[in-house]
Amino acid sequence: MDPSTLATLLISCADRRGLVAGLAQVLSGHGANILDSDQHTDRDAAQFFQRIVFDVAELNTDRGTLERAIAEVAKRFSMSYQLAYRQGVDGQSNKKRMAIFVSKYDHCLYDLLLRHQMGELDCELVLIISNHPDLEKVARQFEVPFKLQPMGKDNKPEAEQRELELLQEFRIDVVVLARYMQILSNDFLRAFSGDIINIHHSFLPAFIGGRPYHQAHERGVKLIGATAHYATANLDEGPIIEQDVVRCSHRDEVTDLIRKGRDLEKLVLARAVRSHLDDRVLRYGSKTVVFD
Amino acid sequence: MDPSTLATLLISCADRRGLVAGLAQVLSGHGANILDSDQHTDRDAAQFFQRIVFDVAELNTDRGTLERAIAEVAKRFSMSYQLAYRQGVDGQSNKKRMAIFVSKYDHCLYDLLLRHQMGELDCELVLIISNHPDLEKVARQFEVPFKLQPMGKDNKPEAEQRELELLQEFRIDVVVLARYMQILSNDFLRAFSGDIINIHHSFLPAFIGGRPYHQAHERGVKLIGATAHYATANLDEGPIIEQDVVRCSHRDEVTDLIRKGRDLEKLVLARAVRSHLDDRVLRYGSKTVVFD
Amino acid sequence: MDPSTLATLLISCADRRGLVAGLAQVLSGHGANILDSDQHTDRDAAQFFQRIVFDVAELNTDRGTLERAIAEVAKRFSMSYQLAYRQGVDGQSNKKRMAIFVSKYDHCLYDLLLRHQMGELDCELVLIISNHPDLEKVARQFEVPFKLQPMGKDNKPEAEQRELELLQEFRIDVVVLARYMQILSNDFLRAFSGDIINIHHSFLPAFIGGRPYHQAHERGVKLIGATAHYATANLDEGPIIEQDVVRCSHRDEVTDLIRKGRDLEKLVLARAVRSHLDDRVLRYGSKTVVFD
Amino acid sequence: MDPSTLATLLISCADRRGLVAGLAQVLSGHGANILDSDQHTDRDAAQFFQRIVFDVAELNTDRGTLERAIAEVAKRFSMSYQLAYRQGVDGQSNKKRMAIFVSKYDHCLYDLLLRHQMGELDCELVLIISNHPDLEKVARQFEVPFKLQPMGKDNKPEAEQRELELLQEFRIDVVVLARYMQILSNDFLRAFSGDIINIHHSFLPAFIGGRPYHQAHERGVKLIGATAHYATANLDEGPIIEQDVVRCSHRDEVTDLIRKGRDLEKLVLARAVRSHLDDRVLRYGSKTVVFD
Repeated sequence: MDPSTLATLLISCADRRGLVAGLAQVLSGHGANILDSDQHTDRDAAQFFQRIVFDVAELNTDRGTLERAIAEVAKRFSMSYQLAYRQGVDGQSNKKRMAIFVSKYDHCLYDLLLRHQMGELDCELVLIISNHPDLEKVARQFEVPFKLQPMGKDNKPEAEQRELELLQEFRIDVVVLARYMQILSNDFLRAFSGDIINIHHSFLPAFIGGRPYHQAHERGVKLIGATAHYATANLDEGPIIEQDVVRCSHRDEVTDLIRKGRDLEKLVLARAVRSHLDDRVLRYGSKTVVFD
Repeated sequence: MDPSTLATLLISCADRRGLVAGLAQVLSGHGANILDSDQHTDRDAAQFFQRIVFDVAELNTDRGTLERAIAEVAKRFSMSYQLAYRQGVDGQSNKKRMAIFVSKYDHCLYDLLLRHQMGELDCELVLIISNHPDLEKVARQFEVPFKLQPMGKDNKPEAEQRELELLQEFRIDVVVLARYMQILSNDFLRAFSGDIINIHHSFLPAFIGGRPYHQAHERGVKLIGATAHYATANLDEGPIIEQDVVRCSHRDEVTDLIRKGRDLEKLVLARAVRSHLDDRVLRYGSKTVVFD
Repeated sequence: MDPSTLATLLISCADRRGLVAGLAQVLSGHGANILDSDQHTDRDAAQFFQRIVFDVAELNTDRGTLERAIAEVAKRFSMSYQLAYRQGVDGQSNKKRMAIFVSKYDHCLYDLLLRHQMGELDCELVLIISNHPDLEKVARQFEVPFKLQPMGKDNKPEAEQRELELLQEFRIDVVVLARYMQILSNDFLRAFSGDIINIHHSFLPAFIGGRPYHQAHERGVKLIGATAHYATANLDEGPIIEQDVVRCSHRDEVTDLIRKGRDLEKLVLARAVRSHLDDRVLRYGSKTVVFD
Repeated sequence: MDPSTLATLLISCADRRGLVAGLAQVLSGHGANILDSDQHTDRDAAQFFQRIVFDVAELNTDRGTLERAIAEVAKRFSMSYQLAYRQGVDGQSNKKRMAIFVSKYDHCLYDLLLRHQMGELDCELVLIISNHPDLEKVARQFEVPFKLQPMGKDNKPEAEQRELELLQEFRIDVVVLARYMQILSNDFLRAFSGDIINIHHSFLPAFIGGRPYHQAHERGVKLIGATAHYATANLDEGPIIEQDVVRCSHRDEVTDLIRKGRDLEKLVLARAVRSHLDDRVLRYGSKTVVFD
């Protein structure tokens, strides 16, 4: 199968009879072949969610007509939806464009760069922004543009403004905070229209805030965790995409927790980024649906 | 929602265009409301699998008509399928009828009985068969009929014949081998038309055959496992439904592996039985599709 | 080896040179054979911890002399220590005497009773106390004395007083709160000289307090957890003995979390109780050392 | 504490009374301060194993005298032992010298290089040998000497001879086969006196031999694994140091198993190498003791 003719449709709406059949009919009627379909109904919230992957190689019409038909069904059922083609009609790739924000820790950055190089992350990795110069050499190894934007108490608004300009200039769809040690202001979060994924080095909601490994050591927990979530105005309270834990014991000092945590942060962040890039994540309220 | 009006359709067939839409249309057209749908395509085998849960409370026709329409689609696409209503039209429950085979180990038996009592296993647990009298008192505690059927080298065919009669008499749909220490003959396997789920106390295909914990200890592995699978003529080679592992170390003697393994066997078997009872498992060749 | 002649020594003290050799010499000099020794130094707290298992079968002196020698070393190094023989000199078992507190949930109770019956828990399980009559029949199945002690807003002090009398009457060393739905008062905690182990159905310190599965569902976490800890005056803040988690997803409603959580609670509580009974746990501050 | 004055003693011998006290006395008597001690007795094999970390900063004698005393105890108890100082008396580091063998896959190589750069692996990483030129650029990024040694059916003995010379020239203590796609000959294994650690991409003993992910997919397992072990003449049957697994499902094609497996291979190999470098692994027969 030629993946270049695939499209993904993500849907959410209030649960209503006939939804599933309605969409299947529209797609099928226009010659789109449904390859994969997954759905979920949150009964408490009475919300319906669906992800459909279909092939447009043998459409019996054009994309515009199909899109209008989908829009019509969406209107009928009051759906929100998002449609992504792997390639435009011009044959250009529609891959998401990703930027990574880092500070001094390099493990998540290296991990994302290597996974991208390996083909695990279906995106254009086009920009690295940092408030420190340390990781420029890593960016250079992988030939990704590196922009240094120092940030202090005195220049935060201007620095964030400059970052926003870079995101616009590089047409960034998704920002990954790869152990970026600055808190994004609410102004920044409002101004950027794309998605922002953060990795927090604890099993949220435990150990919110600073130095979570120190907190975990202090409390004497027997597992440490990491959490990837969308960044929102309420710090560490964004919708969770992925979490995992690793066992620790009384033998582990804080430095051991930090070392074990690095592996966890890399894995959890990479899984979350991959799910996002593959259009598998739907947000609603403070939660997510992550289709397998 | 009233679960008594739900039905589950399990489908497998060669992958063909229009499958998904075709079925959705038939169900929707007869007033069946699709609540959940999950599908899978095995590209290597070019096989398509789907599980659809739908509500027949507001059918605009009767079940017979719906069934004939489904049969027609199935014929058109050369589908195998299996349709299960939660209740018959007479209001009688259609729960699967389960028998448990045991010998002397009681942990899996207790576990299944307790889960059934707790409502975790959606079935009628109506029969326990054993080749030893030891566990009769457990059966009595939970008020499940217990049939002793001793088995030795000399009486195996007759004993198995008697077991088959019991399965027929109790109208058993599914047999669970809960650490049953006898090997079922091919004759038995051919004669019983229902499903048989076995728990093997290793991570198959490692340590096939007898005394797997001893084998694992001998080999010095760092994890031990358990595997629930459908019983087939080739011992320990049936389609795998569920597996899991637990960490062990040089400190663990065989008795420790046996102790740790008990927890694993219980969990793995229970998950497999639950998936089977909820019509989430499709077999093809020596493999399974297990829908979440 | 005859386990009846084994003894376990648990030690904690400020870290000092010569500790390990000093104790080894005393034990060896009296003919005690060291079978297992594990130690830990918390460098931040400069605290030393050790667990020594030794055989007194071939002592070249009597237990009293050995004990005086140990006491002398302990004084020299300002050690706290705890010495437990598997059997008294009279051949009587020195197993810890355990009571279980329950309310209405039966899964942890059944689990502990079955493990005890299987020989996994090295204790005398001699008493079950409940504020509800529901689980009396379970106690009767396993032939353990069941004492009903209803508890309401009006009679809490008197009810707890009665419980303390029962604990004294049955000479209880350790109480296990097996999903006991009452909060023990500080008076009770002060009055009982033994150990109290509780299971909390979350990954502490996340979701402290009531209805943690509901909290977890509300927050949209991707793992749920359970925590076994010593009960202390600060609710849910006692020293953690064991924790574990299980994966969940958007598909899991609160009832699914409760179901998955039951398995977790059983496993985590059983591991903690087993470690405690085997004298593997040392408390210091709000933390524990749990020797493998 | 100054780690440069630490030493590690690894011991194995037939189990005998007085062992633990005997060694503790010798070390203590010479002014060595025991910081950590872990031991294990394999009762089936009646073998005793111990790892002792001690500080020689305040020896009341010299290292030579201490070593003679240890040798004497070792002789008395017929011990095999291995003593490693962190630094020589000349202040030179005694870190193990490591070589990595690779072919074309880069994920394990990158992982080891990054962990070494991060300080997680306590060794001198001084040599990379490959039968393909592809990964030379990675070696160069991390400034580690890269030696290309092509190998085919016709030149295997000569090529292995050249590799042995390189190992000697670079004074290599431990070789890590980081997805090296050649089978080492028995001659090579006999000729090299150091240790060789291999990563096999299955949960051994399942799926021995080639293309284990294809085998796993074919069998329909629900977990895939990876195993790090010492290389021995019997391929894939060397003593296992570390294993782990990750969940998979019917959705995973072989390429997904390969992708998931990469993370597993990296983690399992890194943990095994770290344990080996920290002198935590003792081999006996086809098994290992791995002290925490």
